[in-house]
Amino acid sequence: MQDYLEANKGRFLEELLELLRIPSVSADSKFKGDVRQAAEYVRESLAKAGADVAELHETAGHPIVYGEKIIDPSKPTVLIYGHYDVQPADPLELWTSPPFEPVIKDEKIYARGSADDKGQFFMHVKAFEAMMATDSLPCNVKFMIEGEEEVGSNNLGSFVSQNREKLKADVILISDTAMIANDTPSIDTGLRGLSYVEVEVTGPNRDLHSGVYGGAVANPINTLAKMIASLHDENGHITIPNFYDDVVELSAEEREMLESAPFNLEEYKADLAIDDVQGEAGFTTRERASIRPTLDCNGIWGGYIGEGAKTVLPSKAYAKISMRLVPNQDWNKITDLFAAHFQSIAPKSVKVTVTPHHGGQPYLTPLESAAYKAAEAALTESFGKKPVPTRGGGSIPIVALFEKELGLKTVLMGFGLDSDSIHSPNEHYGLFNFYKGIETIPLFFKHFTALS
Amino acid sequence: MQDYLEANKGRFLEELLELLRIPSVSADSKFKGDVRQAAEYVRESLAKAGADVAELHETAGHPIVYGEKIIDPSKPTVLIYGHYDVQPADPLELWTSPPFEPVIKDEKIYARGSADDKGQFFMHVKAFEAMMATDSLPCNVKFMIEGEEEVGSNNLGSFVSQNREKLKADVILISDTAMIANDTPSIDTGLRGLSYVEVEVTGPNRDLHSGVYGGAVANPINTLAKMIASLHDENGHITIPNFYDDVVELSAEEREMLESAPFNLEEYKADLAIDDVQGEAGFTTRERASIRPTLDCNGIWGGYIGEGAKTVLPSKAYAKISMRLVPNQDWNKITDLFAAHFQSIAPKSVKVTVTPHHGGQPYLTPLESAAYKAAEAALTESFGKKPVPTRGGGSIPIVALFEKELGLKTVLMGFGLDSDSIHSPNEHYGLFNFYKGIETIPLFFKHFTALS
Repeated sequence: MQDYLEANKGRFLEELLELLRIPSVSADSKFKGDVRQAAEYVRESLAKAGADVAELHETAGHPIVYGEKIIDPSKPTVLIYGHYDVQPADPLELWTSPPFEPVIKDEKIYARGSADDKGQFFMHVKAFEAMMATDSLPCNVKFMIEGEEEVGSNNLGSFVSQNREKLKADVILISDTAMIANDTPSIDTGLRGLSYVEVEVTGPNRDLHSGVYGGAVANPINTLAKMIASLHDENGHITIPNFYDDVVELSAEEREMLESAPFNLEEYKADLAIDDVQGEAGFTTRERASIRPTLDCNGIWGGYIGEGAKTVLPSKAYAKISMRLVPNQDWNKITDLFAAHFQSIAPKSVKVTVTPHHGGQPYLTPLESAAYKAAEAALTESFGKKPVPTRGGGSIPIVALFEKELGLKTVLMGFGLDSDSIHSPNEHYGLFNFYKGIETIPLFFKHFTALS
Repeated sequence: MQDYLEANKGRFLEELLELLRIPSVSADSKFKGDVRQAAEYVRESLAKAGADVAELHETAGHPIVYGEKIIDPSKPTVLIYGHYDVQPADPLELWTSPPFEPVIKDEKIYARGSADDKGQFFMHVKAFEAMMATDSLPCNVKFMIEGEEEVGSNNLGSFVSQNREKLKADVILISDTAMIANDTPSIDTGLRGLSYVEVEVTGPNRDLHSGVYGGAVANPINTLAKMIASLHDENGHITIPNFYDDVVELSAEEREMLESAPFNLEEYKADLAIDDVQGEAGFTTRERASIRPTLDCNGIWGGYIGEGAKTVLPSKAYAKISMRLVPNQDWNKITDLFAAHFQSIAPKSVKVTVTPHHGGQPYLTPLESAAYKAAEAALTESFGKKPVPTRGGGSIPIVALFEKELGLKTVLMGFGLDSDSIHSPNEHYGLFNFYKGIETIPLFFKHFTALS
């Protein structure tokens, strides 16, 4: 196995770079053709690697790539999930090299999608190839690689519910998260849920001259600002009534365990070039970003935003707002609470619409499951160190969906780092992480088969 | 005179439409060539109308058109001011016909600049032509038509101070404001000043994943919203310390006189399709828009504003903010007060920069001046009705500048209507107003010469 990985690592990297050159931005319809091309590339990779089945499933949106290799129906089956779509690359001017022209710098691959998630799911394709080539695949494997994760996986749910038989497995393995450090392996045991909405505030029916009407008519930008500001109190608590009702508070022991993982606040601030952190009173920076729900504006726009000055009192202002949720919050319920509250705080002088974009449920992986133990053993073997269980702040909504539709637990064995700048300019993924992942995955298959 | 106007009105309109077809947007550098073309067109119109001097004066920005006809140095001189530049036309999708392809609908000219200010200053060019053609120009006339009014007239000040001799006159006449209604002539006796700034709020040094960092790091959009919201208190008062110190409060009599002009709040709300007005407690809608200072966001942007959803915690958020000022507020002082206050309310978790765009001082025209009386007589003669003195909410910063540099009072004899949608999509100007202006202006010349 090691010899095979060593002999082929150059080609593995070349093939990943090829995939990274395809701008598969799922959020923007003008990249529709590129998204399909990426799907086709993944399908071919699976076929070449030795899958018996490697096919594209059409959806109302972008296609889902499905692949499988059944060596013996009596053996356990590992279902690999990943996504070949990527976040939009803007703001382009902040990239030091073009987002879709990958370059290797300081042992890192710089490109949109390098870490999230092309670089990570592709490790599974290559690990599968290696197990096939060295005749060491110990159990059955299935692949489900979608193209709409970055826009809410809107069509994955129906695909899963319509293909329960095809997707039958014993565990789901996903590499789409980060570990603590290259010398500190960790496993994400929890994910935050998400509710993503867009709001529109309308004042007058047309843009007005701010001199003629300014001061006498509600300004939708000022009004939106006031409404957004009111969503947090002075302690950083979210003010939406009943927002915290279902939040599971962690025990002192659980909080202690999470804090045991290495973390340096000064380095954290220095890395972001901020003088101070900010968040909910009574919780540490890590807790704020993992076990606590949040509300963030992801975008805001209205009025004149071009060069120079325009004295306009605009008709409309908009914002994209997302809330990260923690176990037991239900994203549909939270979305409704937000919409009702946002309408209720709108002054009579404006009209407000709230449009839900998408969402997902939070998730927890039990530490006593065979799946977690197999991942723990695999990482211990390849890193020579026992991994730390952590709680992630991000959301992979479909993990909760898989549990509901397929009755399967998921293991989040991610090889990225928080510093990979995913969703940001200059996203990158370490060569060490890429190769370490390919080396570790077969070990998970070995241990999981043994433990099952 | 009447015969000449009647015989040439078709050509007058054609010539205006020609000028309106030139997209002279001063705020956007990509229209630089068009702005110059508009200046050239104005220069030619003055020469054709009979000016002895008609020339372009270069500035650091867009050129200033100067023209003059001196019939007798011993006679009084009227200096006409106007601007040939226009506001940006966006949002383009809200125009029912292209902004720079003028069309006549319901007796109105629809085009960007039709009312502000091409349609209005061009009346003076045609009135001048008519007086020349009918040999009835009773005094000297000078024209100063600039191309940077919509971006703060940054280069007019130095032009004026360097050309005091050339600009020597007895009064300045400007048509760049509105009257109450076509059957209710009025004269603007006061203007609000302006301070226009742009603010930038920086949180982390790069865009972040809102899942990984959300809740733990200041979000510049949420922070900006909070800062903007805090600029007004619950009574609609501006919270910037010392902001109101120099405001001149009107006497009960003065407020009563302003309220005497016809105004219908229900029609006002219906026209804007709003359920309620909003503004400073203790003042009427008209007072809020004329004799009271205001603070409005003219634009805001930050984060992901494209199609779909992006879970980004952005590095930066921006806003364009303008304050309308009333007599005696000084725009430089207010700009400093704003900058100091906005910096002071920024939390330690972000960095804030405030960049002044431009500004101007408020202004008042004395009712007892010969200039005002001449305008009053002219309007009374052409409308058969005595005009109402009003206070405008808009700003023509250079009016205060003229008084300071040239020691001249200004008469604001505007023929527009508040419903002309200036600075908005579907800006328009009535044919009645265009022709009525051309007919009234020679009467001002007659009465002013007689009263001087």
